[in-house]
Amino acid sequence: MDRRSFLKTSALGGTAAAATTLAAPAYAQGNRTLTMVTSWPRGFAVLDDAASYMAQMVGEMSGGSLTIDKKAPGELVGALEVFDAVTSGQADMYHSADYYFGGQHPAYSYFTAVPFGGTAQEVTNWYYHGGGEQLHDELGEIFNLKGLLAGNSGSQSGGWFRNEIKSAADFNGLKFRMPGQGGEVLGKLGASVQNIPGGELYQALSSGALDGLEWVGPMADERAGFQEVAKVYYAAGFHEPGSALSSSVNLDVWNELSDQHKAILRYASMATTYLQLSETLANNGAALARLQAQGVKVLQFSDDVWDAFGKAAAEVKDQYMDDELYARVRTSFEESLATSASWINKSDGYYVEQRVRVLGG
Amino acid sequence: MDRRSFLKTSALGGTAAAATTLAAPAYAQGNRTLTMVTSWPRGFAVLDDAASYMAQMVGEMSGGSLTIDKKAPGELVGALEVFDAVTSGQADMYHSADYYFGGQHPAYSYFTAVPFGGTAQEVTNWYYHGGGEQLHDELGEIFNLKGLLAGNSGSQSGGWFRNEIKSAADFNGLKFRMPGQGGEVLGKLGASVQNIPGGELYQALSSGALDGLEWVGPMADERAGFQEVAKVYYAAGFHEPGSALSSSVNLDVWNELSDQHKAILRYASMATTYLQLSETLANNGAALARLQAQGVKVLQFSDDVWDAFGKAAAEVKDQYMDDELYARVRTSFEESLATSASWINKSDGYYVEQRVRVLGG
Repeated sequence: MDRRSFLKTSALGGTAAAATTLAAPAYAQGNRTLTMVTSWPRGFAVLDDAASYMAQMVGEMSGGSLTIDKKAPGELVGALEVFDAVTSGQADMYHSADYYFGGQHPAYSYFTAVPFGGTAQEVTNWYYHGGGEQLHDELGEIFNLKGLLAGNSGSQSGGWFRNEIKSAADFNGLKFRMPGQGGEVLGKLGASVQNIPGGELYQALSSGALDGLEWVGPMADERAGFQEVAKVYYAAGFHEPGSALSSSVNLDVWNELSDQHKAILRYASMATTYLQLSETLANNGAALARLQAQGVKVLQFSDDVWDAFGKAAAEVKDQYMDDELYARVRTSFEESLATSASWINKSDGYYVEQRVRVLGG
Repeated sequence: MDRRSFLKTSALGGTAAAATTLAAPAYAQGNRTLTMVTSWPRGFAVLDDAASYMAQMVGEMSGGSLTIDKKAPGELVGALEVFDAVTSGQADMYHSADYYFGGQHPAYSYFTAVPFGGTAQEVTNWYYHGGGEQLHDELGEIFNLKGLLAGNSGSQSGGWFRNEIKSAADFNGLKFRMPGQGGEVLGKLGASVQNIPGGELYQALSSGALDGLEWVGPMADERAGFQEVAKVYYAAGFHEPGSALSSSVNLDVWNELSDQHKAILRYASMATTYLQLSETLANNGAALARLQAQGVKVLQFSDDVWDAFGKAAAEVKDQYMDDELYARVRTSFEESLATSASWINKSDGYYVEQRVRVLGG
């Protein structure tokens, strides 16, 4: 795969020149409204929370001169159609997770999460101080997008299962929902992997269309109600150790904005991640305790299973390396991760280990 | 100690009523400039970086209608005089670390860092989603301050020593710089503890006025040049696992600001922490490697030493419990930390452990 093939196959096609017209600014008395299409039903914990914070911060900081009109799936386009809607100029910006668009370009996985990748902090270190933001923009230029990250789920749970996973062989034949490279890893272990939008997951698990799924973490999963249908919950997962959410803007729309409005969007996207991620991590512990009180069994995958995840993850990452941009994004990410982790493991990591040893907990 | 005694002993005294006059707004053609006094010399890595980001973001997002005029120590007041300058209205806001002001109220320690306290993420979880911000404001009302946090050092290094610490007894008689409750802990181990502003530390260590010190972490410590004077560096420390920086505003000045300018200051403070912390953590690994290349020996304290830190830390925290507000702040913080950690240790913590096991590193 090369860049040219992505251009040809993307929904953008020949419509790039028309995007400016389509996205003609909705100015009214000097004010500007940006239409944001999202992949999240209204009120979906963590994900829609992030989109809501972003909209609120932009409105407040601009004194109302820039507002975001947030659309749930189905109000303008479907949950996974938001990328095409923004590249074509049908909407001004989206709030989603870029790994849903790995079909447009495999490098998009790195702007959400990859298996055995970075925690939320490590992803942030790379994005703002290791070249990630510039690579996101370079990728965005292919699709007429200005990249912005706004939100992070934290380390995602291993997922919901009807039965315990005793060995990697238990994934064989399992109908499981997991997007991105993580899903490709489970596919290598024999699972029948599907990417179903969040709003349709409860029904799919209830009906038996899925044997299991991963969504986000205790706070979001509890709200979605999966504990009513499955009782085995794995805490740590290999697949999304810190998933960034994306709030990218049509590039023509972006280029028309004033420097002040650009600054508000960019810093609001940072404050959104900060405020939403901390809300999620402040609430996950209590949500987990409530899940356990409802009979959910909380487990960790065994070392053998983690080893199988690791082997398959390396194969998945390698299979895109003939794409030059993918290779550059992966290399940049992995170099940043290695240097970040070389300190964090010695400081935060060692500290928490000692805190647990000395104080318990 | 009770609140009344803090009021009596603070520099605020009877000048609260005069603060509005003293801080009369410097409006020029509808624009507003806030004078920010800081505890950091210009260019001091991590700390002055955070103050600079805050000023830059506010200027850009307000389109210049709100600007911050940042003053280094000595330009208006000394490094540790910034709290009194802002409570009295001599300056509009400060950028510092609130534990420097534990003499004004011991609860201020919790708005920077306490021994065996939270990582940067855990502190943030508490501040924005566990009642911390409201308690900061309640404390601030005593001193005529609106609390804002802007910046975080991440987990601070154990510090610089001329000789290895073989046991807790090696702290006995050591002339060591460590502020806050951490310093009180070392005092209980027999150290002669001093709080010296950052700008004076290199000289104090060089001259032998100090036997050792802790400052921030590899990126900031390398810039300060301590590796030229001491060669033993402990990576993890017990004393400041995620030190928040404070950018609090004179309450009369805050109350006069428009809702838009208040929103810009509050969200800019969040984006500042996000951007500066990730910069610090992105750079610490490489800085550590350079320090090692200059002959610095990087170590961890032994379990015995950590146990001694833990015992003394519990005594230090208990000695302020007769103050009602301190007790409420401590309880709120510890409850939030316990619930945050109950999930984070199972997800991020377990994940990183497996990543290191499976991939190495």
